[in-house]
Amino acid sequence: MSRVSVEKRILGRNDLVAAANREKFDRAGAYVVNLISSPGSGKTTLLEKTLAALSKRLKTAVIEGDVETDNDAVRLRATGVPVEAIVTGGACHLDASMVGRAFTNLLPLTVDGLDLLIVENVGNLVCPSAFDLGENEKVALVSVTEGEDKPLKYPALFLAAGVCVVTKADLLPHLDFDLAALTANIRAVNPALKVFVLSARTGQGMEEWLGYLVSRASERK
Amino acid sequence: MSRVSVEKRILGRNDLVAAANREKFDRAGAYVVNLISSPGSGKTTLLEKTLAALSKRLKTAVIEGDVETDNDAVRLRATGVPVEAIVTGGACHLDASMVGRAFTNLLPLTVDGLDLLIVENVGNLVCPSAFDLGENEKVALVSVTEGEDKPLKYPALFLAAGVCVVTKADLLPHLDFDLAALTANIRAVNPALKVFVLSARTGQGMEEWLGYLVSRASERK
Repeated sequence: MSRVSVEKRILGRNDLVAAANREKFDRAGAYVVNLISSPGSGKTTLLEKTLAALSKRLKTAVIEGDVETDNDAVRLRATGVPVEAIVTGGACHLDASMVGRAFTNLLPLTVDGLDLLIVENVGNLVCPSAFDLGENEKVALVSVTEGEDKPLKYPALFLAAGVCVVTKADLLPHLDFDLAALTANIRAVNPALKVFVLSARTGQGMEEWLGYLVSRASERK
Repeated sequence: MSRVSVEKRILGRNDLVAAANREKFDRAGAYVVNLISSPGSGKTTLLEKTLAALSKRLKTAVIEGDVETDNDAVRLRATGVPVEAIVTGGACHLDASMVGRAFTNLLPLTVDGLDLLIVENVGNLVCPSAFDLGENEKVALVSVTEGEDKPLKYPALFLAAGVCVVTKADLLPHLDFDLAALTANIRAVNPALKVFVLSARTGQGMEEWLGYLVSRASERK
């Protein structure tokens, strides 16, 4: 069997489990986002600040994926939000089965309701974009330290995503980085992508991002 | 057939081609490095500066891997060094067959000799570390904007690599980044890893890295 046909079968099976996840998420009334980015573009720091800021507005939970260590899950639990860790043990992406099992483990912790579930995928700009987890929306993160050409070099993610968050905007004065060129490259790949430019460290641009999550979660009710 | 057994067969086949590549590289007398990092950690900028600085000291060529676009190959050709582009069309890593074909295409451009061949892998901290390309050494790049925990979260690469280059050191004054913690994490995963801390933008630390490449290439002669 060729590698491609094996991958097709794996993806076919994944889609079935993702559809079952989607039903479970719908039943729980949760809006579910799947955060995808390179390692180090600031997913976990953005999550920390997002969870703290939303604590009074939404019931939130997190599924936290990593190749090794549950350091990030421990870091996020300090916000008081229920966090379930997935350690993939080498696998380069989350799949729907991993997320389905993690959601089952989370359910007892969300008996008071769940408005927003954030899945933090493994740090990888390539493989995670091919795997539907049953989420409502994929969110692509790209930091201003990464170069303006990322959307052109990794189009699969920017095509699959509904939202792009540009992180670490506080570093712009210290970089040779052309934000207008990044935005043009995003638009060239996917003109419909909603773009937020923010700094989780300084808080600049955070309110628009938080407002977006609150409004999408409210639509599910 | 399970996914794992298919992956084992693919890796087995890859190892055979990698061994054939290694013989070809040896015959050419070239020292071959395989640069692996996240997207945006500065592989291409480091390469630009490295190629320019080495032009009088070594005969160098580049094999440039990307998921989409040959932008980086075009950028690197401006240095005057022979560059062969591999566009993987979605695949998340280079494999030995891709590199073997690219090396065959490069050979007519290196008739005056080849001391150093640099393979820039696809931007991905997970998948490329599992694929031997026939290189002499894997070089892991990590930028100071990425967080100190990357060696713990992606140990496979830091175990497989012989060298770690910490890039964008000029940004340290603007970041909450603990360089000593990164170094400790590197040492915890692989105490034998040789570490260079540098900024391709300002040139700080570049001479040690260049000197290392020159000395390793000389040993092959």
